[in-house]
Amino acid sequence: MIADLRVDMERLWATLMASARIGATERGGLRRLALSPQDGEMRALFARWCEETGLTLRVDAMGNMFALRPGRRPGAKAIMIGSHLDTQIFGGRFDGVLGVLAGLEILRTLDDRGVETQHPLIVANWTNEEGARFEPAMIGSKVFAGLHPLEAALDIRDKAGVRLGDALRAIGFAGDAALGPEDIDSYFELHIEQGPQLDALGAKIGVVVGAYDIRYLVVEATGESAHSGATPLADRRNAMVAAAHVVVAVDEIGAAHAATGARSACGRLVVEPNLLGAVAHRAEILCDFRHADPTVAQAMVDAFRARLPAIADASRCALAATREWRYGGAPYDAALAGLLRDAARALGHAPRDMLTVAGHDSMNLACVVPSVMIFTPCDRGVSHNEAENVSRADVEPAVNAMLGAVLGRDAGLRSEPGAH
Amino acid sequence: MIADLRVDMERLWATLMASARIGATERGGLRRLALSPQDGEMRALFARWCEETGLTLRVDAMGNMFALRPGRRPGAKAIMIGSHLDTQIFGGRFDGVLGVLAGLEILRTLDDRGVETQHPLIVANWTNEEGARFEPAMIGSKVFAGLHPLEAALDIRDKAGVRLGDALRAIGFAGDAALGPEDIDSYFELHIEQGPQLDALGAKIGVVVGAYDIRYLVVEATGESAHSGATPLADRRNAMVAAAHVVVAVDEIGAAHAATGARSACGRLVVEPNLLGAVAHRAEILCDFRHADPTVAQAMVDAFRARLPAIADASRCALAATREWRYGGAPYDAALAGLLRDAARALGHAPRDMLTVAGHDSMNLACVVPSVMIFTPCDRGVSHNEAENVSRADVEPAVNAMLGAVLGRDAGLRSEPGAH
Repeated sequence: MIADLRVDMERLWATLMASARIGATERGGLRRLALSPQDGEMRALFARWCEETGLTLRVDAMGNMFALRPGRRPGAKAIMIGSHLDTQIFGGRFDGVLGVLAGLEILRTLDDRGVETQHPLIVANWTNEEGARFEPAMIGSKVFAGLHPLEAALDIRDKAGVRLGDALRAIGFAGDAALGPEDIDSYFELHIEQGPQLDALGAKIGVVVGAYDIRYLVVEATGESAHSGATPLADRRNAMVAAAHVVVAVDEIGAAHAATGARSACGRLVVEPNLLGAVAHRAEILCDFRHADPTVAQAMVDAFRARLPAIADASRCALAATREWRYGGAPYDAALAGLLRDAARALGHAPRDMLTVAGHDSMNLACVVPSVMIFTPCDRGVSHNEAENVSRADVEPAVNAMLGAVLGRDAGLRSEPGAH
Repeated sequence: MIADLRVDMERLWATLMASARIGATERGGLRRLALSPQDGEMRALFARWCEETGLTLRVDAMGNMFALRPGRRPGAKAIMIGSHLDTQIFGGRFDGVLGVLAGLEILRTLDDRGVETQHPLIVANWTNEEGARFEPAMIGSKVFAGLHPLEAALDIRDKAGVRLGDALRAIGFAGDAALGPEDIDSYFELHIEQGPQLDALGAKIGVVVGAYDIRYLVVEATGESAHSGATPLADRRNAMVAAAHVVVAVDEIGAAHAATGARSACGRLVVEPNLLGAVAHRAEILCDFRHADPTVAQAMVDAFRARLPAIADASRCALAATREWRYGGAPYDAALAGLLRDAARALGHAPRDMLTVAGHDSMNLACVVPSVMIFTPCDRGVSHNEAENVSRADVEPAVNAMLGAVLGRDAGLRSEPGAH
């Protein structure tokens, strides 16, 4: 009976399109920054859906939302399905949202068929996954996993100086749920790939067996403000020129390792005062290096640090890496990946083992509970873009495979060794 | 009697220090953006001083302020002394302000001694000289000189979308004075050098005989937004990388001509969306090339344009120069320069002929009336910086020389040919 269980794609799509109206941009994307009024509206709608589905909603001090469906076995830990409802400034309609609403749809499908589970099931919405408003990204799940102090996270401020904790209270999502990793059996996250591989192959299901090692460095360049017309070039300490060389260096270091799949980028560049006629006295550049092999990721960071003194000399600015974050060190769970593969095959799909290059809340969860991800294709791999798109046919197989794997986990099934 | 006329430096200094309190920054500078409440407060104070001095204040549609002292000869055109009371975001206390308040002090000195002039005298405060809030810079004098349409200037918007015309009305300085270049006999502007030459030489008076040819280009880079983790470098169209190469090119082209005094800089760099995890889809860079020789200035612009296709190719972005402005083409008046030199020598100072590299309202005035500038030293040449500083002893000679030259012009004196 359970083997032929399938989600209701019409219902899932209806929730996705309802979400797509909250923070909709003119060009068909979404702008729903973490803890903005739009995020508050979406959270309220999600809470209403959970209530209509009979789920118990709990919110923790970081605003992470947990919709709980009880299990039969007393004391059993919960199987959690999660992702995020916030978006980039020029984001798409599916990044994150699909994972949360697929979780809700799976619980609704179980209700439709009267399926009870041994374990409680939880659908989670993590706060500020994108990091588009508050840095660093994925902070809600990082605090949940005990990898970042709660108070420090609540004190993070956006560009306008608004404190994360105050923004949470303003939209009514500062809770007190005491849920923690000790309550969780396993974590599943479904997400669009945000890369071109599945789409190019015509494949529908990616089983994420590992995460790139992601290294962020914030580099600060300190120069001296001056009149850019009157001051000869040789007398300047121009932080904008230093920053430009940093951006070029980050790009070149990524390109040098591109053959082995390296990624690098500068996510944010701030120049002060950034004005006509004024030499910049300060610049801050957020640098991002990623590689599947932690050794190479480290080598990229080392190569980058090695280039800073020459840039400092040439621009006569002081350069320093003032902050550093790392994501993606922990492995994904092999048993959960096996269940996903089995479920995919049972649906007649050939699963593809993949790595995630993008950052996901699952990277934080993987540090403390067995965790895994499942990818759907997305058109041409375009994401973090208003043009981001998927079709129902693209995502249905992965949602059903996640449903199957969750039930397999609940039943204590084990994947056949060597089956992949 | 007139030859021994000297300004009251105590009184001038008191007005400068009163100005230094309006928009004062913690580090001893000024932040008094054009048409801000602080600019409004300073304008009101200046208007009160003018009134106390018996001057007639007129304000034109651009908010330019003209304080008028009548002359004796009917129909004679006015000798104008002007500069600006607005500042950079992190500006100093003297840039612009000194020129306006020196003009006021000169008129007060004439009153003290009962000196009447043949020509009317005007002290002018030009709107938005710095361009720190509304672009382009020096727009008040540009409209006065008939070099920019009034309506287009009133429609310029600041970063927050506020229209210049609305900002003028908000501080009560949208006037209707019909004053124009046809009413002006000659224009004098006193300013700190904003460069290190006079300070290094221990000289007190620079006679500005010409202006650098200043060329601004706004370059727009169009890329495509994408997820910077998931998207391989070879598949990106990263506008931030294109912008970084533009900044480096502008710096290198200036450096290549540094031996002949070239200047280049990027005044403002805007990257969109400028966020962690997102490839930039757009960047805008304000590029600034300056050279005393218009042929070389043009060659720098040409060299820059020639580098854009390679940057576009490498970054796969579209690059285009979307706007362009030019300042400083017109020569300064040789007769007025001669009067300044004579006045300097009469005070026992050796005047130094100089060029101005910085942009000044006098560049616009020079296109339509005989114009000249006089420079004072400033400490280490530091300007557009809160640390900008001058001493009374540094500026007194230039103020008295300007007084002497203005009276010489009024008396119809001519400098001895070949005296310099």
